[in-house]
Amino acid sequence: MEKTIDEKVIAAIEKDLRYIAGLVKQKGREILSHYTVTPPQFVALQWLSEEGDMTIGELSTKMYLAFSTTTDLIDRMEKNNLVKRVKDEKDRRVVRIQLLKEGARIIDEVIKKRQHYLHEILQDFSDEEIILLQNNLNKLHKNMKG
Amino acid sequence: MEKTIDEKVIAAIEKDLRYIAGLVKQKGREILSHYTVTPPQFVALQWLSEEGDMTIGELSTKMYLAFSTTTDLIDRMEKNNLVKRVKDEKDRRVVRIQLLKEGARIIDEVIKKRQHYLHEILQDFSDEEIILLQNNLNKLHKNMKG
Repeated sequence: MEKTIDEKVIAAIEKDLRYIAGLVKQKGREILSHYTVTPPQFVALQWLSEEGDMTIGELSTKMYLAFSTTTDLIDRMEKNNLVKRVKDEKDRRVVRIQLLKEGARIIDEVIKKRQHYLHEILQDFSDEEIILLQNNLNKLHKNMKG
Repeated sequence: MEKTIDEKVIAAIEKDLRYIAGLVKQKGREILSHYTVTPPQFVALQWLSEEGDMTIGELSTKMYLAFSTTTDLIDRMEKNNLVKRVKDEKDRRVVRIQLLKEGARIIDEVIKKRQHYLHEILQDFSDEEIILLQNNLNKLHKNMKG
């Protein structure tokens, strides 16, 4: 590697990120425990809410899950009226998953609760620090997506 | 809430953090796929490596798992010579889990690979940005731990 970033700083960032990822997951589970939605179902709702209707294949790729696992997930969510299967108008062989009203309501509510939690966590950050954090996290996220 | 942090900024941070947590988890799984260690086993090794010997009760709390789940996890890891049960010298009724050489080797190797990945991700960050990111993530981590 060309650049000479101090290895200790990288190690510290890796450690903080590893623990933050675990805590984000744990807090997410805690919030979801009040809903009839499992963590993988939440991730599916998140993708459908943010990127619109998707085929099961597209959703499998986003979620790093096997096609059959995603199919089972969607079957259960369809039963619970969170999503429905919709045929493409131009090509009836193509089926996409669409978010239903109840799915949209849950995802909005859960994300609001996550934002509320984060707001509390950031109480002792100055406005400037928050803006910096947002810029840095956004850049980190973009680079990780590759 | 007293402070008037822009809600859009909080929403953006929540979203980036949610996706970063997912990507950290996915990258971790990818690295672990080359080892005979499952993701929860990795988390247990991480705690034992960073905080030293622990009782199953202490480890359950850290991992947000039921006592019985942690016991099963440790049983399997003991069978694979990653950890061993050790009686407390002063109070023989107290049993702690100790990291063995092979467990320590795996955790060190996996964390080095995670650091290497992060190093690549941060290639286009300036040294100043990296230091800022480290400070911000460290503060965020501390606040989340509460």
